[in-house]
Amino acid sequence: MSRDRSNSLHKLIDLMSRLPGFGPRSARRIVLHLLNNRQVLDTFLHLLLDVKKIIVQCDKCRNLDIHNPCSICLDEKRDHTTICVVENVGELWIMEKSGAFNGVYHVLGGLLSNMTNTTPARLGLDKILDRISEKPIQEVIMAVSATLEGQTTAYYVASELSQHNVKISRLAFGIPVGGELEYVDENTLKIALKARQEVI
Amino acid sequence: MSRDRSNSLHKLIDLMSRLPGFGPRSARRIVLHLLNNRQVLDTFLHLLLDVKKIIVQCDKCRNLDIHNPCSICLDEKRDHTTICVVENVGELWIMEKSGAFNGVYHVLGGLLSNMTNTTPARLGLDKILDRISEKPIQEVIMAVSATLEGQTTAYYVASELSQHNVKISRLAFGIPVGGELEYVDENTLKIALKARQEVI
Repeated sequence: MSRDRSNSLHKLIDLMSRLPGFGPRSARRIVLHLLNNRQVLDTFLHLLLDVKKIIVQCDKCRNLDIHNPCSICLDEKRDHTTICVVENVGELWIMEKSGAFNGVYHVLGGLLSNMTNTTPARLGLDKILDRISEKPIQEVIMAVSATLEGQTTAYYVASELSQHNVKISRLAFGIPVGGELEYVDENTLKIALKARQEVI
Repeated sequence: MSRDRSNSLHKLIDLMSRLPGFGPRSARRIVLHLLNNRQVLDTFLHLLLDVKKIIVQCDKCRNLDIHNPCSICLDEKRDHTTICVVENVGELWIMEKSGAFNGVYHVLGGLLSNMTNTTPARLGLDKILDRISEKPIQEVIMAVSATLEGQTTAYYVASELSQHNVKISRLAFGIPVGGELEYVDENTLKIALKARQEVI
């Protein structure tokens, strides 16, 4: 079929190979797997069509949910004066799973980067500013990765919000819990040593 | 949404995480990417539905094509007395792309393995036996990976076809063209040395 490959099949593999985490090989592998397992393909299509129809973006925080505003923004029991800023919905889910946070969120939809063309305009900071002007916000917590892009984005967001009377914080740096010291990199070690805490 | 995540979204991520090459993290990443890029999602769905409708398996060789029999099996200019046995359609495409082979194919759909539950019955050898009984086949070339599963499968297919008057061969082992000797493993080196050829 390589000389006479169906156009749609070719296009499908091409589109998949440009999705994050995919290359031409893995895209071809998945497509062939689905074509050889028609029941899986049917279920996949059914769920994808369903999700496309029912999942919407929250106008307040840009979370994805079956409601707009999302169930977190609608939850009266949550602390609406604390906004946790996350890179994407996947990381919002991780925060929720941890059970450590009971405030509300803002989803950036990416980190500032030349590589992925994420510009300040795409971070949706106007939505945070709207929320600050609507009701008093005590604290904005930057819960982004400890990478160059993550920290650049954190500083950018902090500088944009600095005129407003809001405390801006970020997650602590340090040794991951359960992590073996042997595998911790030098910079983390330096920071963890500097921020050391008394045991008793 | 983790406490109240839509059922379909949960099921979709779960299904994707069980596809080859995927895990929960990469499945979540792709699904969120598609939900945040609705145009890509629409194109993806359109192509997937199209491919599902038009792509069929060839009854002769188990290739995937828009015709049955496939365009290779229908091609009069090809050598129908030589069958190249490949693991899957992806490897058939690689063979075709190389332009090195002008015979016809048989697609095994997997290699014998306890890990993936591929049993002899799933290799479709009855289709090769049917073809041998229909018209004279000169040679069956086993073009499978040089792994334990690949070579076990090659020996199994060879033994199943051994009662018939057919030459059975396999791809040569040796140093990959363009490969640096430094990175070639010991066993390949031993085999390549044993099978050395005169330069002039």
